[in-house]
Amino acid sequence: MAQKPGIPKGTRDFVPAEAIRRNFIFNTIRSVFELFGYLPIETPAMENLSTLLGKYGEEGDKLLFKILNSGDYLQKVNSDLLHNGDSNGLSSEISEKGLRYDLTVPFARFVVQHQNELVFPFKRYQIQPVWRADRPQKGRYREFYQCDADVIGSNSLLNELDLIQIIDEVFKRFQLKVNIKINHRKLLSGLADIMDAPDKLIDLTVAIDKLDKIGLEAVLDELRNKGIDESAIEKLLPVLNLKGSSMQKLQDLRILFEHSELGLQGVTEMEQMLDFITLIDLQADLEIDLSLARGLNYYTGVIIEVKSNEVEIGSITGGGRYDDLTGIFGLPGMSGVGISFGADRIYDVLLQLDRFPEQNLNQTKLLLINFGGDDERYAIQVLQKIRAAGVNAELYPDAAKLKKQFAYADKRDIPNVLIIGAEERSSHHLTMKNMRDGSQNRLSIDDLIQELKGNN
Amino acid sequence: MAQKPGIPKGTRDFVPAEAIRRNFIFNTIRSVFELFGYLPIETPAMENLSTLLGKYGEEGDKLLFKILNSGDYLQKVNSDLLHNGDSNGLSSEISEKGLRYDLTVPFARFVVQHQNELVFPFKRYQIQPVWRADRPQKGRYREFYQCDADVIGSNSLLNELDLIQIIDEVFKRFQLKVNIKINHRKLLSGLADIMDAPDKLIDLTVAIDKLDKIGLEAVLDELRNKGIDESAIEKLLPVLNLKGSSMQKLQDLRILFEHSELGLQGVTEMEQMLDFITLIDLQADLEIDLSLARGLNYYTGVIIEVKSNEVEIGSITGGGRYDDLTGIFGLPGMSGVGISFGADRIYDVLLQLDRFPEQNLNQTKLLLINFGGDDERYAIQVLQKIRAAGVNAELYPDAAKLKKQFAYADKRDIPNVLIIGAEERSSHHLTMKNMRDGSQNRLSIDDLIQELKGNN
Repeated sequence: MAQKPGIPKGTRDFVPAEAIRRNFIFNTIRSVFELFGYLPIETPAMENLSTLLGKYGEEGDKLLFKILNSGDYLQKVNSDLLHNGDSNGLSSEISEKGLRYDLTVPFARFVVQHQNELVFPFKRYQIQPVWRADRPQKGRYREFYQCDADVIGSNSLLNELDLIQIIDEVFKRFQLKVNIKINHRKLLSGLADIMDAPDKLIDLTVAIDKLDKIGLEAVLDELRNKGIDESAIEKLLPVLNLKGSSMQKLQDLRILFEHSELGLQGVTEMEQMLDFITLIDLQADLEIDLSLARGLNYYTGVIIEVKSNEVEIGSITGGGRYDDLTGIFGLPGMSGVGISFGADRIYDVLLQLDRFPEQNLNQTKLLLINFGGDDERYAIQVLQKIRAAGVNAELYPDAAKLKKQFAYADKRDIPNVLIIGAEERSSHHLTMKNMRDGSQNRLSIDDLIQELKGNN
Repeated sequence: MAQKPGIPKGTRDFVPAEAIRRNFIFNTIRSVFELFGYLPIETPAMENLSTLLGKYGEEGDKLLFKILNSGDYLQKVNSDLLHNGDSNGLSSEISEKGLRYDLTVPFARFVVQHQNELVFPFKRYQIQPVWRADRPQKGRYREFYQCDADVIGSNSLLNELDLIQIIDEVFKRFQLKVNIKINHRKLLSGLADIMDAPDKLIDLTVAIDKLDKIGLEAVLDELRNKGIDESAIEKLLPVLNLKGSSMQKLQDLRILFEHSELGLQGVTEMEQMLDFITLIDLQADLEIDLSLARGLNYYTGVIIEVKSNEVEIGSITGGGRYDDLTGIFGLPGMSGVGISFGADRIYDVLLQLDRFPEQNLNQTKLLLINFGGDDERYAIQVLQKIRAAGVNAELYPDAAKLKKQFAYADKRDIPNVLIIGAEERSSHHLTMKNMRDGSQNRLSIDDLIQELKGNN
């Protein structure tokens, strides 16, 4: 009868030590989102496939997890589809729902559906899992959390400033040094304009996005293969070779883009951003990176990407502005801007650098040793007082051997144990032992609670 | 192109006001679990169907949401199955994974899989959604959260005591008056024994579980229909008619059960429970209810159910002890005991009684009015200081009309707005307006922060 237990590939269990660290990450991000006035929403794990399909490209459609309709789902299916053995054709007949693939499309759907209940500009955060039927590999999972903050219904660059400050505050709290790179879709459009290749914008961004990885020559070759001619490439080179501060780069771009209206708009917006940033203290490094495109076609304004300065792991946070987020669901003209923290990669970075704060990892501060009988009855009463004071504590559930009870405290990493025998009961002074340094103290219950609260 | 947005029936979105209230419920339950030394775990939303099937009865199997295999899933399917149009037969060929139906079976699977990483007795809590393809109706959803705490690997009744105290503490924090009913599977076995109908235990418990709803006569009729004879029913009546305190009932049962070994074991365990409970302060009413069976066959010891004293809504928390929780996954002899809070029903009760604490519902404490230009630049700097002090605050993103900005603060229920014009900038004293009573104050930034932190 017994079966060997397992879970679907690409998914994970989290044992307590991992779950506590993950909660530390989520709670930190959540409290920064709230510090900046973002409000929580939740959407269901399952969305109608009509909401999801066609939003993530052909490849994305294939990566959706589809839910089999309930009941006798074959009853109404056209028998030709069954005989053909056409998986794709059959899917749409036997499945109406899918698991959410990201938080952005459900958010757009949510905004349109609840537009009359929301206050605009609407600043929402959402921390929920998403699912993708990707091929599992190191650092890539089929179930993972996204931590998103987006504003919808405001074109102001103050929103971008807020998001950059959120990034800075989150990584300050994580004690991680990061590099924030920003770019602007309109700078990329300007680039395509001066190359006389506005129709090649996507090819251009896809290619120069790889500059870091494959180097300049390979990027230029890719552009040539896409039909971009040498005179255009000549115009690209000075832009890619821009040196100096971000402000300096913008000044040079203003000259290079003198004939591109879009390019000049991009320069103006980026100058405004940099001006705002001079007003605030920013711990992270921030720079304009013209090669940043994040491989995504839907950003229409500022593009943001964050990398660790200490660990090679790729982007750990990213985002940008996208006009007309909700048009596809029937609410046109709403501009949105948002960021998404990659909780799983941040976890890996914090673990690798051993930066998880120790005091957050052991939740129980005290184990009461159980000697049974009257000692146990007394311990039950002491325990209730200690908990009433807000100290996380527990009583070993059996009068087991001392060695076993101490081993439990040790393995659970509980920092203190409390010993209550006949002498302690009659004197009302209990013996507390520090598991770290072995020191012992006789304390009244009140003093004990004070001591433990100080340790919290 | 635009499509009317919607979500699958039986699922829900949560707008901020709802999400904040839900988070209040989850956070309260979570912090009480941690107060009692329970540790968090997480399991994936998807489990292998081999883990889930057969664990919830035939009806439960039908209510599982199944995930369609990825890729060309029909390729390997036996073509007979397709031609038959046999939905059930086909499901097992085209679906290997399902969404979790509860948190107990995944927990049992988790314990067996990670047994070498865990410290026993293992006290875990888990707050995650579950999915059931039930017919949606008022108060019943296809996606809902469970908040479970279980101990595995300890037979001690101190665990039951802890769970009862957790229930008491949670509902104290919610300011809800509740009634905790307890029973014991072995008391029900004793009842079956004295009726000479040990093989009819399930019929017996199913019938008397309905006592509240359908009344004594209907219960007796149901028993007669199940083949229980009049002499047995004669023996049942005095038990159902037991009066007096819980302790008194146990004393009477000790006499009635004198020939039932199981019954006497049940009496002894319940007496021990009641003795423990005399040692602690319990705010909730607690009583033994012999009709309590929770319609579940797997409890083997204490059974717990909680109802509101103020709202008619059925059980809002329940649980009990189940031996051999993990045997099915290959780890026999592990006894478990646990409870599950029904977050959705608790939400409904708190909403109906208007008991959500006001101060938890508005997260942003201050809106800075935006006058544009130099005022805006100054406001950006003030805002950073206020946030650095830990006060949730935001700046309106545009220099919109005052009326519009105030309307935003009003609709968002932000309690204070800050006005910074030229005069405020030159005096370094800012005007804060209380949105509740309309009062205004000129304050330095430091005083302003002190004032807002006092309000938090």
